[in-house]
Amino acid sequence: MRATVINAPYDIKVEEVPDPVVRKPTDAVVRVLRACICGSDLWPYRGEVAQGPRPGQRIGHEFLGVVTEVGSEVTGLAPGDLAVAPFMYSDGVCDFCREGVQTSCVHGGGWGGFDHDGGQGEAVRVPYADGTLVKLPAEAASDDRMLASLLTLSDVMGTGHHACVGAGVRAGGTVAVVGDGAVGLCAVLAARRLGAEQIVILGRHTVRTDIARSFGATHVVAERGDAAVEAVRELTKGEGAHSVVEAVGTEQSMTTALRITRPGGSVGYVGAPHGSGDGVDLRYLFDHNIGLRGGLAPVRQYLPELLKDVVNGTIDPSPVFDRAIGLDQVAEGYRAMNDREALKVLIAF
Amino acid sequence: MRATVINAPYDIKVEEVPDPVVRKPTDAVVRVLRACICGSDLWPYRGEVAQGPRPGQRIGHEFLGVVTEVGSEVTGLAPGDLAVAPFMYSDGVCDFCREGVQTSCVHGGGWGGFDHDGGQGEAVRVPYADGTLVKLPAEAASDDRMLASLLTLSDVMGTGHHACVGAGVRAGGTVAVVGDGAVGLCAVLAARRLGAEQIVILGRHTVRTDIARSFGATHVVAERGDAAVEAVRELTKGEGAHSVVEAVGTEQSMTTALRITRPGGSVGYVGAPHGSGDGVDLRYLFDHNIGLRGGLAPVRQYLPELLKDVVNGTIDPSPVFDRAIGLDQVAEGYRAMNDREALKVLIAF
Repeated sequence: MRATVINAPYDIKVEEVPDPVVRKPTDAVVRVLRACICGSDLWPYRGEVAQGPRPGQRIGHEFLGVVTEVGSEVTGLAPGDLAVAPFMYSDGVCDFCREGVQTSCVHGGGWGGFDHDGGQGEAVRVPYADGTLVKLPAEAASDDRMLASLLTLSDVMGTGHHACVGAGVRAGGTVAVVGDGAVGLCAVLAARRLGAEQIVILGRHTVRTDIARSFGATHVVAERGDAAVEAVRELTKGEGAHSVVEAVGTEQSMTTALRITRPGGSVGYVGAPHGSGDGVDLRYLFDHNIGLRGGLAPVRQYLPELLKDVVNGTIDPSPVFDRAIGLDQVAEGYRAMNDREALKVLIAF
Repeated sequence: MRATVINAPYDIKVEEVPDPVVRKPTDAVVRVLRACICGSDLWPYRGEVAQGPRPGQRIGHEFLGVVTEVGSEVTGLAPGDLAVAPFMYSDGVCDFCREGVQTSCVHGGGWGGFDHDGGQGEAVRVPYADGTLVKLPAEAASDDRMLASLLTLSDVMGTGHHACVGAGVRAGGTVAVVGDGAVGLCAVLAARRLGAEQIVILGRHTVRTDIARSFGATHVVAERGDAAVEAVRELTKGEGAHSVVEAVGTEQSMTTALRITRPGGSVGYVGAPHGSGDGVDLRYLFDHNIGLRGGLAPVRQYLPELLKDVVNGTIDPSPVFDRAIGLDQVAEGYRAMNDREALKVLIAF
């Protein structure tokens, strides 16, 4: 089959790789219908990872498709089923999976690399298929917009929701979202879904903040640093927001997030830390009783509830995709995201 | 009246000071029956504060007593009432008070210093008496043990409870408490009250860990550092505790707290940060979805519910006091706590 391979920084291409097969009785094989490129895929793309990409490295961790083969112990899925995968696989039965932290599954792991298929390819061997995959309504397969919406459940929508959970978003509360990437936008949608009354997005790309408004943002703050803090405080009677989402991961974004959180409030952070640890001033958190919770989102935990609301039309995260390509154009897709020409690129097979 | 004054490091004495009077219509004056010395009083005592004690500085923030005078706008209290004060005063009506973060009250503040009476004196002028004071059952006045128990609600018991709330302690969960000072011990009691099944205290002073056992600790870990982490992991199937209380405030205690928290768990921290910020490794928190919440405890918020359980005998935190003195012996009380001869010293008037 054909799959995306990243051989070195900026060297991304589609190559012929072995067809996936069921190796363990708990495996399934999924023929990919939709995949996409994540902001975090740009780190290896740019060589911004400790162990830079090595020749033959597979990539992509967001996909949905049709089950083509299942192992003998798989009971919840059958060939022909449409299913979505979270960005990590998990056994579904260990203590952490049962507690809703599937990202810490004792048998879990990530897609791509050298031991697993990546999502940006024609098919994927899925370990622990019963624990990992979530079945989708068959009729979605013929609905482009619905497929795009459902694909966000593999990562960005679940991650935005996780940020809101960490930030303690509740009905009637005020929410501020730092970051207007796909995850920040999904956090806006998640906050609205959870009943937040006032939702402020901090961002200065009009195309993105327009999506944020359509997702439920009530205010846009285009300033940065001190001016952004001032602007959010002005919108919240000088008190700050109850819940703040940090969806960037830098020192500045974390500092801003803390300073716009009201005493007793919480920061939900999902920006993978690349500097943000330096923005955590524990004395400030202590003095103001500000909570900090987040991390690698256990999207598998949220998938069933979010799926329900995507299918019934309560939420439609599909606008985070502003470009669709075929697998052959994957290199161009990476380039467009890296150059910030595209917000998030969908790959249709 | 006579009150404790700290003129310089290690120079603590009882001096004659002006009698407190009602200055504002929302004030009350309380004649102190019981006060105590806090671990945090030892910081100015040792000169470990940015602006070291200056001559005439008043001290003490934990007290209960009898209301002797109220301002014209005070409606909830009358002369003769027995009442306890939290370690900060608060107006009870601002947004933060209503949200349960009275420590961030827009009109709030602390006891002692130069503008307010300290708790370690014969009487205290209490600002915002309706918001600050909590009425106690009159019959408690003649019950030494009950008075000691109720006095802990001014700080350590509420602070231990706050740590448990921050750590997300829940019925059936596992809890580990780092620190065997009065707050750590109260956290054990609070965890038991909240229904925790397994409660591990990390501490190596047998006198203290014995109190912890009587408060509900199921296990004692006397090791420190890596060995302590190993020991707690062994007690929790290698997974760590759901909820961890950090009640020290140093880098080592925070590092230990994070490492014994299971993925998806939470650290509730109430040790005022003196180094603990350096123990917060955000990448570690991120990878394991560990939450961090705590701070200056809004004990006023918890007072009514904890009071009920002290009065009905569900909890008795009084054993945290292992020495009782009169006001004249206050210097000796500080010395004993500073030399770790006493865990917590009660002052009876």
